[in-house]
Amino acid sequence: MEIEEVFGKVLREIRLEKKFSQEELAHICGLDRTYISLMERGKRKPTINTIFALASGLNVLPSSLVLATESIFDLES
Amino acid sequence: MEIEEVFGKVLREIRLEKKFSQEELAHICGLDRTYISLMERGKRKPTINTIFALASGLNVLPSSLVLATESIFDLES
Repeated sequence: MEIEEVFGKVLREIRLEKKFSQEELAHICGLDRTYISLMERGKRKPTINTIFALASGLNVLPSSLVLATESIFDLES
Repeated sequence: MEIEEVFGKVLREIRLEKKFSQEELAHICGLDRTYISLMERGKRKPTINTIFALASGLNVLPSSLVLATESIFDLES
């Protein structure tokens, strides 16, 4: 799996854990729902600014999103 | 300071700590020297894939680059 695909899975998992719809998360983060959907499917590579916006909306640390991503990515490679 | 400016400072600091030139780091990471320079000056917003490539070249965890960035960013805001 590519890094952006792993990130997408992490994003989706935490969003569902927090019981947000894509629409709600998009609204809180000031992003487009379509963009959230594309990221969750690994079709977009978020910038550091987007990672910070998502983390803020999800009320987690930006580094925790990246930590979760690298943990899964390392397991796979 | 914007997130990408803080990230740039973190990147530069760790690169110098590891005694890499921009040229050397670029070569190891498969990135352009100009791109490293632009990031260090906060003129580019790295994607998660670029953060992983930089971290690998610097032999640090991707999450540690983001942790350092968020620590400084939080201090400032």
